[in-house]
Amino acid sequence: METLNHSEITALLLALGLLLATARLLGELSRRFNLPAVLGEILAGVLWGPTVLGALAPAWRAFLFPSHGGGALAFDGLTTLAIVLFLLVAGMEVDLSTVWRQGKVALWVALTGMLVPFSLGFAVVWWAPGLTGYQPGVNHLAYALFMATVLSISALPIIAKILMDLNIYRSDLGVTVIAAAIFNDLLGWLVFAVVLGLLGVGDGMHLGHTLWLTFAFTAAMLTIIPWVIHRILPWIQAHTSWPGGVLGFALSFCLIAAAFTEWIGIHAIFGSFLAGVALGHSTHLRERTRTTIDQFVSFIFAPLFFASIGLKVNFVEHFDLLLTLTILGIALTGKVTGSALGGRFGGLPWRESLGIGFGMSAQGTMGIILGVLALQFGLINQQVFVSLVVMALVTSLVSGPMLQWILRLKKPRCFTDYLQLQSFVNHLEATERWQVIHELSLVTAPLAGIDTAIVTAAVRAREKMMPTGIGNGLAVPHARLPGLTAPLVAIGLSAPGIDFDAPDNSPAHVICLILTPLNDDGAQLEILADIATTFKVREIRDKVMNVEGFTEFLALVRSGQPRR
Amino acid sequence: METLNHSEITALLLALGLLLATARLLGELSRRFNLPAVLGEILAGVLWGPTVLGALAPAWRAFLFPSHGGGALAFDGLTTLAIVLFLLVAGMEVDLSTVWRQGKVALWVALTGMLVPFSLGFAVVWWAPGLTGYQPGVNHLAYALFMATVLSISALPIIAKILMDLNIYRSDLGVTVIAAAIFNDLLGWLVFAVVLGLLGVGDGMHLGHTLWLTFAFTAAMLTIIPWVIHRILPWIQAHTSWPGGVLGFALSFCLIAAAFTEWIGIHAIFGSFLAGVALGHSTHLRERTRTTIDQFVSFIFAPLFFASIGLKVNFVEHFDLLLTLTILGIALTGKVTGSALGGRFGGLPWRESLGIGFGMSAQGTMGIILGVLALQFGLINQQVFVSLVVMALVTSLVSGPMLQWILRLKKPRCFTDYLQLQSFVNHLEATERWQVIHELSLVTAPLAGIDTAIVTAAVRAREKMMPTGIGNGLAVPHARLPGLTAPLVAIGLSAPGIDFDAPDNSPAHVICLILTPLNDDGAQLEILADIATTFKVREIRDKVMNVEGFTEFLALVRSGQPRR
Repeated sequence: METLNHSEITALLLALGLLLATARLLGELSRRFNLPAVLGEILAGVLWGPTVLGALAPAWRAFLFPSHGGGALAFDGLTTLAIVLFLLVAGMEVDLSTVWRQGKVALWVALTGMLVPFSLGFAVVWWAPGLTGYQPGVNHLAYALFMATVLSISALPIIAKILMDLNIYRSDLGVTVIAAAIFNDLLGWLVFAVVLGLLGVGDGMHLGHTLWLTFAFTAAMLTIIPWVIHRILPWIQAHTSWPGGVLGFALSFCLIAAAFTEWIGIHAIFGSFLAGVALGHSTHLRERTRTTIDQFVSFIFAPLFFASIGLKVNFVEHFDLLLTLTILGIALTGKVTGSALGGRFGGLPWRESLGIGFGMSAQGTMGIILGVLALQFGLINQQVFVSLVVMALVTSLVSGPMLQWILRLKKPRCFTDYLQLQSFVNHLEATERWQVIHELSLVTAPLAGIDTAIVTAAVRAREKMMPTGIGNGLAVPHARLPGLTAPLVAIGLSAPGIDFDAPDNSPAHVICLILTPLNDDGAQLEILADIATTFKVREIRDKVMNVEGFTEFLALVRSGQPRR
Repeated sequence: METLNHSEITALLLALGLLLATARLLGELSRRFNLPAVLGEILAGVLWGPTVLGALAPAWRAFLFPSHGGGALAFDGLTTLAIVLFLLVAGMEVDLSTVWRQGKVALWVALTGMLVPFSLGFAVVWWAPGLTGYQPGVNHLAYALFMATVLSISALPIIAKILMDLNIYRSDLGVTVIAAAIFNDLLGWLVFAVVLGLLGVGDGMHLGHTLWLTFAFTAAMLTIIPWVIHRILPWIQAHTSWPGGVLGFALSFCLIAAAFTEWIGIHAIFGSFLAGVALGHSTHLRERTRTTIDQFVSFIFAPLFFASIGLKVNFVEHFDLLLTLTILGIALTGKVTGSALGGRFGGLPWRESLGIGFGMSAQGTMGIILGVLALQFGLINQQVFVSLVVMALVTSLVSGPMLQWILRLKKPRCFTDYLQLQSFVNHLEATERWQVIHELSLVTAPLAGIDTAIVTAAVRAREKMMPTGIGNGLAVPHARLPGLTAPLVAIGLSAPGIDFDAPDNSPAHVICLILTPLNDDGAQLEILADIATTFKVREIRDKVMNVEGFTEFLALVRSGQPRR
């Protein structure tokens, strides 16, 4: 059997390690600036690819990311697998029933949100092909259909993430956007299948065959197969080791479905996406199984795939400003107005409709994946590819902030956002309530720029009105202070415990002092709720007394909070 | 960039899907017969490889598992990654401190358990090379050192699994075996590094360089690097999204370490094993992060790798009985007597010493991995490879049962082992205690071959002595019956609940009837304890009333139990 040689293995492992580390690092940095992680992940590829490393140290780049030979093929196999698994996870997030539940509005948004940008894109590419990077020799119809699809497809995982971050995932508006995006995605992939068929990717399979097999497969994956899976899963869980049985079943089902759609001439990811939809539909797929797949794929495979995008082309050399602006303009205009119109037709007021428009406009992941395939099949050139990646990134970046601005939303605030190293007291010296308040005020007042005596007095006054021990070893003395511009939180830990007159009579081991501005009504309640939620987790309560220092405290608290 | 073509991608995905499905299925079947899963996983490869599919449908085999070209290289890259990740998990299971805690005995067992089989193996290969498959033209010293290493290395993951299954992982004997096996593994890998150096795998790197780099790397990975990691992890958890930051860090660290050891001329898996040891050492690596890596690797990557072993050679054509028996004989004799002697020198009685001997004798995974590498480097031929795989499997199969027999251990019994479809009542009709006992006796008595009236009377008599409601909505009426040969369990669910006079006054929703043989003292207590433990999990208690039928009940209960 032909195998990789010693130096190819060395290069492959090193390349994967470095790419993963850089992608995760820059992904985290992106999040820090409230940008989607995918931006940093692609940037990691740009750094290691022809754009930067290729320009600075071409020999290193050729060693780490060879463009030919066993190393290149193995790397390609891995990134193909990565994107197949990523689409599995994206599919698992789809909840088909929401499409129907939100009814009329969702259908309107889905239809006009797809049709308007699709028609706009198709029209521009058809009548002004030069403007959109069309090259003679390429199938014009396929090109126009492809560009129209890219300009009208949404990025379900990104949209879901944005809505969750804004805390409106379960709201009526959120469900409408998600339902419309699902419909959008399914339709977009079907059109893309037609495009691939037109290009004859199916190795001689007749387009007619490709089409009816695609429809039959899609129909089966949305109806009978979820039904069968729902009946098989309990049997697997009952008769195999847990969670190995379900994990193995889910992944091999996904791989075989992917192989099938690849075989019929549309891409493998279409199969794994629908496999994900079929699997995710069953309530018997337990949360822990989902989480295991989701975490491994989202944090290992997805970063590797998106970083590999940055490796593909030179983003500086092939950047064409006019082309990029044209594509971006069509994408944003078409998607936002189309979806907003759908909202209006569905009977929503203008503000909500516009919010839905921007919610639907994120074209991140899906647009990029389509771009990679199109580049691979020679449908588009490198200039268009770079423009599509930039368009996908910009629309994803714009969506969240615009939604927030239009709907006047506020991000939920976490108490750790207002906690600093200086206001964390690992071992409180005071042993009784009023002294503890003073000790914590002492470290917080300088940060607030307010006299310690004023802080202490305000918190004590509030404490006297009603004690702030809330049980479970937690106390939350607090006060609103005039002159304060932003909330401040201090944490003190006490091993012996301090009596804060809690309803369960237990002494408080964790004391959180909360200071908020006088005029900020929501801040205090939000921070209080966040603290209570955090320490409701038993593991955190049990372990908090063992932390050594501020960093370990943060690490513990973060591990109990949902991803952000 | 060179990429896989359409038909290569189709074949690769289909091959991975089929291989994974078969490997998991046969792995589960193996467990069902109390055999290690690795046996079934290798068998899956034998089915899809030259041995079976190659003989029945050579064209299909050539399509699915091509021996040349892009598909073969991509598959090789994937299995290389799989084994690197599997060794990461194996390394993470190592707890260095146990080596020192068990002190004298462990050291004796580690030393003689390594030296005796190593010397025996080396001597036989050196003085009777023909007996052990040595072929002229191969470096004789390297061959002798390699065979000696294979014959003296343990399989830490398998041993740990066997000890856990027997419930003696945390016992003194268990810790001794584990500590000795760790020492054994580290030493074995070092010797193997020397062998690879002798073969000049390092692409011209001088053996001296390979050796001192190996020692320096090992020393660093066991001392300073775990120290650094222990300090870095809390920072990562505090400042990155959870668990993505830690997952990304662990995997990229592992990949870079693997690339390093591959580069210095020993195999990549040595680096990832030590990376696992260094990572696993830190108590800051949270259980959930471990679990995510462990589950994905153990249930996806490991089965794929072990199945790929079966693909490599024709196990029927290259099976040499004499060679296999010779190798098996040396392996078992050397390892068991060597380790048992160590136990005696350490002051243990003969019975325990022999138990330790068989505990150490499982050579499964590690022996096979070494065999794959040796085959790849042309050190051994296919006959020897097949013999090594068979030896590794047989020693792993023998170890558990022998340990159990020598130490007179019993496997802990689960109540689900004695529960049948017929004795599961989804909706109890009876509404009061004595009638419920009758209703459950009615379905159980036929299975026991005992008259219903006798069963009902016995259980009611016991119930009258002392009520069996044990709180949390659970009741466990039970009786010992003369004439019964094996325990029997019946489960009845009651939505309205039945008063079983529980200490917490709550009505019982889950009623477990337990019948045990008169002379089997332990059975009743063990089953009772298992039921109580199972329903202590709140998720199971909350969901049990929603199950529809026996299979869903089993699925629910299994998902709350540890892997088996």
